[in-house]
Amino acid sequence: MEQWRSIEESSLWEAMASRPAFDLQTDLSHASIKKRIINAGGGLAYSYATMDIADETIDMLCNISQELDLQGQYRALLSGEIMNSGEGRMVLHHLTRGEPMGSVVKNGRNYGYFYRNEQKRIAAFSAKVRSGALKTPAGKNFKQVIQIGIGGSDLGPRALYLALEQWARERGLLKLKASFISNVDPDDANAVLASLDPDTSLFILVSKSGTTQETLANEALVKAWLARHGLNPSGHMLAVTSETSPLAGNPDYLDSFYIDDYIGGRYSSTSAVGGLMLSLAFGPDAFASLLEGAKEADLLALEADAKKNAALMNAMLGIYERMVLKRPSLAILPYTQALSRFPAHLQQLDMESNGKRVKRNGKSCALPTGPIVFGEPGTNGQHSFYQLLHQGTDIIPIEFIGFKKNQTAFDPDFEGSSARRKLNANLAAQIVAFALGKPDPNPNRFFPGNRPSSLLFGEELDPRALGALLAHYENKVMFQGFAWNINSFDQEGVQLGKKLAGSILEPGNLKAESGSTDKLAHILDSYAELLGAI
Amino acid sequence: MEQWRSIEESSLWEAMASRPAFDLQTDLSHASIKKRIINAGGGLAYSYATMDIADETIDMLCNISQELDLQGQYRALLSGEIMNSGEGRMVLHHLTRGEPMGSVVKNGRNYGYFYRNEQKRIAAFSAKVRSGALKTPAGKNFKQVIQIGIGGSDLGPRALYLALEQWARERGLLKLKASFISNVDPDDANAVLASLDPDTSLFILVSKSGTTQETLANEALVKAWLARHGLNPSGHMLAVTSETSPLAGNPDYLDSFYIDDYIGGRYSSTSAVGGLMLSLAFGPDAFASLLEGAKEADLLALEADAKKNAALMNAMLGIYERMVLKRPSLAILPYTQALSRFPAHLQQLDMESNGKRVKRNGKSCALPTGPIVFGEPGTNGQHSFYQLLHQGTDIIPIEFIGFKKNQTAFDPDFEGSSARRKLNANLAAQIVAFALGKPDPNPNRFFPGNRPSSLLFGEELDPRALGALLAHYENKVMFQGFAWNINSFDQEGVQLGKKLAGSILEPGNLKAESGSTDKLAHILDSYAELLGAI
Repeated sequence: MEQWRSIEESSLWEAMASRPAFDLQTDLSHASIKKRIINAGGGLAYSYATMDIADETIDMLCNISQELDLQGQYRALLSGEIMNSGEGRMVLHHLTRGEPMGSVVKNGRNYGYFYRNEQKRIAAFSAKVRSGALKTPAGKNFKQVIQIGIGGSDLGPRALYLALEQWARERGLLKLKASFISNVDPDDANAVLASLDPDTSLFILVSKSGTTQETLANEALVKAWLARHGLNPSGHMLAVTSETSPLAGNPDYLDSFYIDDYIGGRYSSTSAVGGLMLSLAFGPDAFASLLEGAKEADLLALEADAKKNAALMNAMLGIYERMVLKRPSLAILPYTQALSRFPAHLQQLDMESNGKRVKRNGKSCALPTGPIVFGEPGTNGQHSFYQLLHQGTDIIPIEFIGFKKNQTAFDPDFEGSSARRKLNANLAAQIVAFALGKPDPNPNRFFPGNRPSSLLFGEELDPRALGALLAHYENKVMFQGFAWNINSFDQEGVQLGKKLAGSILEPGNLKAESGSTDKLAHILDSYAELLGAI
Repeated sequence: MEQWRSIEESSLWEAMASRPAFDLQTDLSHASIKKRIINAGGGLAYSYATMDIADETIDMLCNISQELDLQGQYRALLSGEIMNSGEGRMVLHHLTRGEPMGSVVKNGRNYGYFYRNEQKRIAAFSAKVRSGALKTPAGKNFKQVIQIGIGGSDLGPRALYLALEQWARERGLLKLKASFISNVDPDDANAVLASLDPDTSLFILVSKSGTTQETLANEALVKAWLARHGLNPSGHMLAVTSETSPLAGNPDYLDSFYIDDYIGGRYSSTSAVGGLMLSLAFGPDAFASLLEGAKEADLLALEADAKKNAALMNAMLGIYERMVLKRPSLAILPYTQALSRFPAHLQQLDMESNGKRVKRNGKSCALPTGPIVFGEPGTNGQHSFYQLLHQGTDIIPIEFIGFKKNQTAFDPDFEGSSARRKLNANLAAQIVAFALGKPDPNPNRFFPGNRPSSLLFGEELDPRALGALLAHYENKVMFQGFAWNINSFDQEGVQLGKKLAGSILEPGNLKAESGSTDKLAHILDSYAELLGAI
């Protein structure tokens, strides 16, 4: 991976990084709001007028993105080059929703065909469940679907489900209500099970490797629970896994659907990992529409000019905030309750992808990489942590998300306006309050302003808009990883904890595998003892 | 408030801040784990052996806490002095669970008596509802309780409810299942209402002022929904408010319970704001036990020696991380799914309290104050953002929370261990992995270590432990505010957005109230238009 450079090695870096600051209070103009908007696909637009970065700096960021050939790297990824360098893998999640650079055929397999064929199988299977053609062993209709998975098998699918649950209910499409079991804490599984009717429950076990500790432990618990209720687990369970895993084609499951190593967990929502649950819950058409929206965003991300490429622009502005303005975190603030868990998905997507300290060429990163990502829906956050965003000692860049319409119809006027108008008036007000602040002789009531934000907005949060939103962020994070010259597609940082936990549960492991010193073993023992784990 | 100084004005500050770094990999010893533990009340203990701060530095932090008289300020607060200086108010939330410094009698009122008398009224009322003595107008038993509130009327109560829901269910105490409506987004209320049986629902409207926009809009929506179902809202609604609000003693509610201006929203979980819902859901005894645990923590916080005062030690260590080591954020990572929303509560508690840039004497803070707070339960987070915590370019201090026992009994062994043992083995492993790291010739697999954490742990998450946990953090945040010499009890930073939102909804307001320029009005209009809010 010697051919790629990182952003601080580009010829324009020094000049760009030393450009004067942009003061929103003096430099923001009414006119720039209309100028700084980019189509983001799926009916969404990306507005970045209130980012504290001058036009000339943005021009230079655009030039840098071309010099670093971020576009070329995206095209290489789409074409099936080994972009997950450390693990020697292709990165193919885009193929779940289209083939922007044509077919990827390797090792005798057409990958786009493979992923989309699984979607066809899923569509047919979910149609049968939803229509009642496929029933429980006792002849009942399935009424709930429960996803058992962790990390990427949980956060993205859960965020997408919650994003569309009311949309689907309102339209009569919600046939199977979904629940999620993720944590190895048995109180998690027991809480979910307490709300279920075992006779009509359909579980999806999601583990690419078929060896995820949490997921297998939860499967065992769920199987014991089904057996307690006199049910045969194999009539109530599906698997999503890779073809080479122990779960594949296993008669313990009603059916199995497949993914592979070229789709990382946090990028797997548009594969069978998200597709099976979403198709069962909302129907295959809704899921197809989500894929269409994602495809639109993927195609727009091919545009070389960052000023016409929302994901690329968002990526470059974020890099500037992180590296030049030294801002360590990013708030994602959706003004819709439906996106209540979308920030948690982006927290994984971004922090697991770009929380790296080594470049693709093995050298250490001298400058900061991925930020901390956090967020809650507005207006709730306004009554919580916005105090610090407005008047704290640090500046935290914000990405707002908003929609013009509700998902549900019932919205009576109160004091002269609908709740929707109140919600969006608050969003508009916050953007302006952060940017412009407010002078006040009382220092407690002084708002410094100059706090940057951007806005992704659309008409309505429907499956197509949601697909575009998801892909926008996947592509943004990807472009940032390219610009930092890090591998956004591995996660070596999760291994050490796993290994040490294993050594507590099976004490033979520690000395054998991790090259432990006695000191480490002693300290590990002490904590395991404090917590009653040995 | 001229009598107080901030930490960088203390005589030991320079000496303390210039002390050598503490290297966990070389300096952490097995012995220190037993030495660095403090009783935190409610059966909890605070372990800080893996904080990257040397013993001598900690000694100096302890001395500084005495020089700044943080204890004296706590005692003053408990005694009813005006510690919310900007708003000229006392800060009395501790009195909801005890009177560590004796009665506070002012303006002809004994405040401890007042708060605890409301709790008695709540206990009697909830016992009647739970026993079925008090029924719906149609003669049915109430089966669900729904809290309508936002910010402190939502986050703390919701976090506490979720923390005990399985505990109570397992013990047959869960009589009314609770739901929460908070966001002004009508999709939030409609989602909750879709899951309810209107005939057996009991709503609690929580607004201290009786004027919170979101809460009143949601009340209007809920009342219209009840009316649609042919029900009289006044037979299905309670109010928690102040005695002077329009909601007080109002025949629109079945009953009203009271708080006052001396309990801030984010500190109100142990008042009627949390108490009514929790007592209805779990019974008055469970809530009384939560108060007992909180009282234990409050009493322990009176200890002058920080080495025996968990909240004070936690506060001082956090200040060192923030001000000396310049770490802008803090991860709260509970290893129990029951605390899934506890980090969101602490996000408000900490960021709204200490996200300030002005001291109590009106001078600007030259050094950083409150950090960004975020977190999710483990092991879920391990499969999400821990990658960045282990291998990112920034160091993020961590506060872990763990318990030895489950809340629920069903926990079959799988592969030789219970899920509980797996969970706690993971927690012990993470503490050690962050502290010690791991050498590796492959730079992608190298773990730098030296990443600090602390651990609050106990036997079981029951009401008493939860009360102590809540109070521990309230007191920690309070001590930090004292040490920064900021007012942790106001939230002026929420006002500007409110005002600007009002000016969109009622255009007369803008020019009248906020001293707006035409530019601000133009920009506000543009965003309101983009979002369809005008």
